[in-house]
Amino acid sequence: MTPDAAPFPGTLLGATIAAVTPRDAGAERAGRDRLDRMTKPPGSLGVLEDVAAQLAGTAGSCPPPLPTPAAVAVFAGDHGVHAQDVTPWPQEVTAQMVANLVGGGAVVNAFAAQLGADVVVVDVGVATPYAVEPGPALLVRRVRPGTADLAVGPAMTVAEARQAVEVGIEVATALAADHGCLVTGDMGIANTTASAALVCAFTGAAAAAATGRGTGVDDPTLARKVAVVARAAARVPERPATPEAALAALAEVGGLEHAALAGFVLGSAAARVPVLLDGVIAGSAALVAAALCPAALEHALAGHTSAEPGHALALRALGLRPLLGLDLRLGEGTGALLALPLVASAARALREVATFDSAGVTGKSR
Amino acid sequence: MTPDAAPFPGTLLGATIAAVTPRDAGAERAGRDRLDRMTKPPGSLGVLEDVAAQLAGTAGSCPPPLPTPAAVAVFAGDHGVHAQDVTPWPQEVTAQMVANLVGGGAVVNAFAAQLGADVVVVDVGVATPYAVEPGPALLVRRVRPGTADLAVGPAMTVAEARQAVEVGIEVATALAADHGCLVTGDMGIANTTASAALVCAFTGAAAAAATGRGTGVDDPTLARKVAVVARAAARVPERPATPEAALAALAEVGGLEHAALAGFVLGSAAARVPVLLDGVIAGSAALVAAALCPAALEHALAGHTSAEPGHALALRALGLRPLLGLDLRLGEGTGALLALPLVASAARALREVATFDSAGVTGKSR
Repeated sequence: MTPDAAPFPGTLLGATIAAVTPRDAGAERAGRDRLDRMTKPPGSLGVLEDVAAQLAGTAGSCPPPLPTPAAVAVFAGDHGVHAQDVTPWPQEVTAQMVANLVGGGAVVNAFAAQLGADVVVVDVGVATPYAVEPGPALLVRRVRPGTADLAVGPAMTVAEARQAVEVGIEVATALAADHGCLVTGDMGIANTTASAALVCAFTGAAAAAATGRGTGVDDPTLARKVAVVARAAARVPERPATPEAALAALAEVGGLEHAALAGFVLGSAAARVPVLLDGVIAGSAALVAAALCPAALEHALAGHTSAEPGHALALRALGLRPLLGLDLRLGEGTGALLALPLVASAARALREVATFDSAGVTGKSR
Repeated sequence: MTPDAAPFPGTLLGATIAAVTPRDAGAERAGRDRLDRMTKPPGSLGVLEDVAAQLAGTAGSCPPPLPTPAAVAVFAGDHGVHAQDVTPWPQEVTAQMVANLVGGGAVVNAFAAQLGADVVVVDVGVATPYAVEPGPALLVRRVRPGTADLAVGPAMTVAEARQAVEVGIEVATALAADHGCLVTGDMGIANTTASAALVCAFTGAAAAAATGRGTGVDDPTLARKVAVVARAAARVPERPATPEAALAALAEVGGLEHAALAGFVLGSAAARVPVLLDGVIAGSAALVAAALCPAALEHALAGHTSAEPGHALALRALGLRPLLGLDLRLGEGTGALLALPLVASAARALREVATFDSAGVTGKSR
């Protein structure tokens, strides 16, 4: 194919990539202009001025709509690499946490209740049974019951990777119809291992730099994890240069929830709804999304920076500044969700704050 | 007096200091214990685990109540030091912004609307007239119409300083009756100059290190501001060692809103309601509160770290870690208010998240 040919012709993935366009520069300029006329010192809202302008650019209008209500999609999947003893948590915990999430008992549920967001769990590849039924709070879109062991071979086929990406696109498209902001969530025992492998593959980082303690592994486990990540990342070409190569790298060393999250980022961008990224799982998935479609990331915001070292590497490669730094390392979408009020407040300010003219406030003299 | 004698006998300030006690260690331990049993890796909520435990300690119960609804008190005052040309903004802007705040047009109003908080403006010393009437949204408790010029002499008398502190106590006491969290706000053209002088006086910092550009002053103005701060701070003993010396230093180089904010911190601590501190104005006022009554700060949280250099110095001296770092430099309580959802989410998690036992989730194996 020539570099200009549309990738993945005849597929939902291809159509979605084709539908993504950059932010609207005019609306963004209008946002910046209004921020400068608002009754506050110029620039005094700091990072939130960038957020407000970005929201205007994504919406294509100034002021932008409020990013509410928000929806967190928690994509759940298992990982064959669990067999390499890279985590002290049993694989069954993924399924148990699916039930906990659907039952409202997880941290992300408490945060969502506090912050006014909906939580939808999407089983894109859980390996063991759980004790809850599908319904509006649990979508079963299982591509396969967990990946294969990425330490010894491809985690999934390229077709499965595309299928999982398209699950994410479909979920984003459906949620974007009645939500103003989409929030990435994830659940999957051993998924920081796949995240580290993706960070290495898409940024060229060394395994030791990109691999962390995840949910809190001990030194011997960390050493095993680094070795697994190094071996896996060595099988894929560094910094995939085409969308097809990106999808192949995702299939080789990624996870089903990573694939779905990459699609979720693409789908929200195509729907012109801002997406808030959580920690290293979302960050590594966003690297895949950026390789599939660079413009998609123009509509993303990094909710926080997690304690996992690969996350900072991913954010740097993506050029995203995280809104929060609270040393969270939980996943589920918790860190992204906590940033939602900041994003909503930025939009609200652009919509409601008086200007110097309208409020009869005198400007500064020099 | 002996060191053990209660300060300010027979006054509201003295009674309030006497009413402040440290956090409840038992409730705080119960909070930590519950955090460790919740369905999440231990410690994975990062800084929010400290916040949640602190809230339990302040409430004296685990789980603590939700810190909602919240109230922002915006203390407004003018500054005689405006005559030294330390800011490009006319003094009238304080009064104009009082009207804008009461009318709902300021940034803090938009944030409060988004985050579900009440805003009360308290005129503790505005110098020029404004076009709004007193009412529930505007309390007129003016101690004097602006301070005297701290560059050339005491900003106010010790009696006036105590009166302004007691305004803050009274406002906190009233708001604590029907609010779960108090948030500091401020409005006062030239108030970063008084803040810098207080930071120098209470931490021993050099004027050049503690003085910043506030709302955005140019180089010549900054040089004048540093000189004024150095001259003022030189008149007070470094690091006042008694409550009486602290009040005297406040009177010498502080502002009326600083005094009220110090009282606000004391009043919320006495009422066992957490208080969220905004930027450098609140940070410098909290230094005064800590010198008046060290235990009061156990019930405070730093909402954010502002771009003003004296703020980081104040937070370090107070031992407070800011929850947000968004380069805000607006005041009004905006940075503290943005941290409210984090505090509320921490409390909510402690109240609602399932434990491993209750949810039937398996713990980690090592």
